[in-house]
Amino acid sequence: MFNAKAYSAASATSPLASTTIPRRDATEHDVQIEILFCGICHSDLHSVRNEWSNIMPTVYPIVPGHEIVGRVTKVGSGVTKFKPGDLASVGCLVDSDHTCPNCQDGLEQFCPNQTFTFNSPDKHLGGVTYGGYSESIVVDEAFVLSVPSNLNLAGVAPLLCAGITTYSPMRRWGNLKGKKVGVVGLGGLGHMGVKFARAFGAHVVVFTTSPGKKEDALRLGAHEVVISRNPDEMQQHAASFNFILDTISADHDINAYINLLARDGNLTLVGAPEKPLAVSAFSLLSGRRSISGSLIGGIAETQEMLDFCGKHDITADVEVIPIQKVNEAYERLVKADVKYRFSIDMASLKTE
Amino acid sequence: MFNAKAYSAASATSPLASTTIPRRDATEHDVQIEILFCGICHSDLHSVRNEWSNIMPTVYPIVPGHEIVGRVTKVGSGVTKFKPGDLASVGCLVDSDHTCPNCQDGLEQFCPNQTFTFNSPDKHLGGVTYGGYSESIVVDEAFVLSVPSNLNLAGVAPLLCAGITTYSPMRRWGNLKGKKVGVVGLGGLGHMGVKFARAFGAHVVVFTTSPGKKEDALRLGAHEVVISRNPDEMQQHAASFNFILDTISADHDINAYINLLARDGNLTLVGAPEKPLAVSAFSLLSGRRSISGSLIGGIAETQEMLDFCGKHDITADVEVIPIQKVNEAYERLVKADVKYRFSIDMASLKTE
Repeated sequence: MFNAKAYSAASATSPLASTTIPRRDATEHDVQIEILFCGICHSDLHSVRNEWSNIMPTVYPIVPGHEIVGRVTKVGSGVTKFKPGDLASVGCLVDSDHTCPNCQDGLEQFCPNQTFTFNSPDKHLGGVTYGGYSESIVVDEAFVLSVPSNLNLAGVAPLLCAGITTYSPMRRWGNLKGKKVGVVGLGGLGHMGVKFARAFGAHVVVFTTSPGKKEDALRLGAHEVVISRNPDEMQQHAASFNFILDTISADHDINAYINLLARDGNLTLVGAPEKPLAVSAFSLLSGRRSISGSLIGGIAETQEMLDFCGKHDITADVEVIPIQKVNEAYERLVKADVKYRFSIDMASLKTE
Repeated sequence: MFNAKAYSAASATSPLASTTIPRRDATEHDVQIEILFCGICHSDLHSVRNEWSNIMPTVYPIVPGHEIVGRVTKVGSGVTKFKPGDLASVGCLVDSDHTCPNCQDGLEQFCPNQTFTFNSPDKHLGGVTYGGYSESIVVDEAFVLSVPSNLNLAGVAPLLCAGITTYSPMRRWGNLKGKKVGVVGLGGLGHMGVKFARAFGAHVVVFTTSPGKKEDALRLGAHEVVISRNPDEMQQHAASFNFILDTISADHDINAYINLLARDGNLTLVGAPEKPLAVSAFSLLSGRRSISGSLIGGIAETQEMLDFCGKHDITADVEVIPIQKVNEAYERLVKADVKYRFSIDMASLKTE
């Protein structure tokens, strides 16, 4: 066991502050990583503030962060995929049971015994796992991903959650080349959705409530931008989309988007509005449409996504901040005031 | 043009009564059919009473009926698939544009220029098309289906709507052999769903609010019956279904069923409740579940379904009535007092 600098919150109402946490010594299959960048995901904020207390109550102190990229500093004797000096990354999961049908299918995100990167029972040290707002982390190599060497590391970090969350449903839907794909919402998830859809060869249409985002959507790769509050603009796209990625986690009119689906079209939700969505059965029947949900991705697919990003030079658009500005960043996140993800430069932690 | 006996309604509040309607002489590609049985579908009743006035206003007089089976009496010179004396059947559609992408894909049910069997503009005679509550019908051979010779004809009629409506989504979902399949509701559609799911080799579970239907569900082929009002019974099946066919067209708690889906499970709606369904996004996300809609089936798939029924000796369970009891049957249909479909014996029309 060794000590690592980190930022933690002591309660749902405490700010994140400098602390020291224990990390285990690398066991046979472990990889020890010096964290270079950690993205800020909205779920970090939800967990810190215990806003998901009904499904996953927060254990304090909490060290959030599951968009982790860094460099390997040490490996256990049984590690085969990594050596010191390699780039490495870690996403939302650090372990699973390896034996259930979901794990057998490479879909560890649905394992009933998964270990999340933070706020999950820690099998090694007891207590709960501590995430990526730290100078280092020790993870079983089965949950460590390789990072293509050509990518900007600050922009790689968000790929581990925002990236895989949007990549996975698009890949699952099938070949998007030449298809018409909509992306609803242009935030951390949405902007990744646009980049992937474009790279898959789709005709990409962004739906946003903010006319001010139009130019940026086009820069990110959209072919068209629709202001969703304008019924005429929406109507022009009726029954024409093969796939729509809905990234909105606030309450919204999902039927307005279902009606834009072509025959056999699918809308996949990756955000989870709290209130039930009002879905018209008639909209689904006419056109044999479907709506689905999707949740991050498995480990193998996460590696596939990173390799795809390397090949297509895709990273998240990030605002790099020092860890000392994390509380301010949370306030801005609530106001959606970031283009499009915060990435914490962990070098800043050295001065604590 | 020739005259045919039929039953029609003169207004939304009139009973169905004996009348005479014109039918066209068979043109080059037409098949003239003596109707032997016509099933009573709930949409007959909705149309007769103009209950779908907002999407498809009824033109009076209306002759409903789109579950038609009979015998060919005459064919046009260009007809290749049928000859006089053959069994033949007609479902919800009698024409489409043949050129749109849906028709090209054999999915005439989504053709924007389709002609319904009744209450659709009639290209040949003007006015609207008249359905199967009649002694005969003349239909383009492209929309006439062959009927296996081994089946009870009264029970074949409902296959043309209730049958294909339930067969199509199950076939589309994939191979159901060894899968766990739920059927919600045990009416005209549901009882066909049970028969098909069983024939596909699935483990079939019926959900019903009526304990009285248990025995009959088992007789129809269900392996298990769950009383959906019993939360404990429902809970025992949590996250275990690969596919659920939801045949309920009344308002109901769809989340209760979504939560019974296993990972990647799908619930397909074939009923269309008027009120929007309240769908929890979280239920869809956790388990990557989906909900879809489905609408009858294409002509080729309808023929496939009929051939499947011939091979597996599947027909609808029907109560055969004379046409003179049709108004009474409508009253009983509203109360779901039928096991499981009325089939009108058209020989009864000869006495009018």
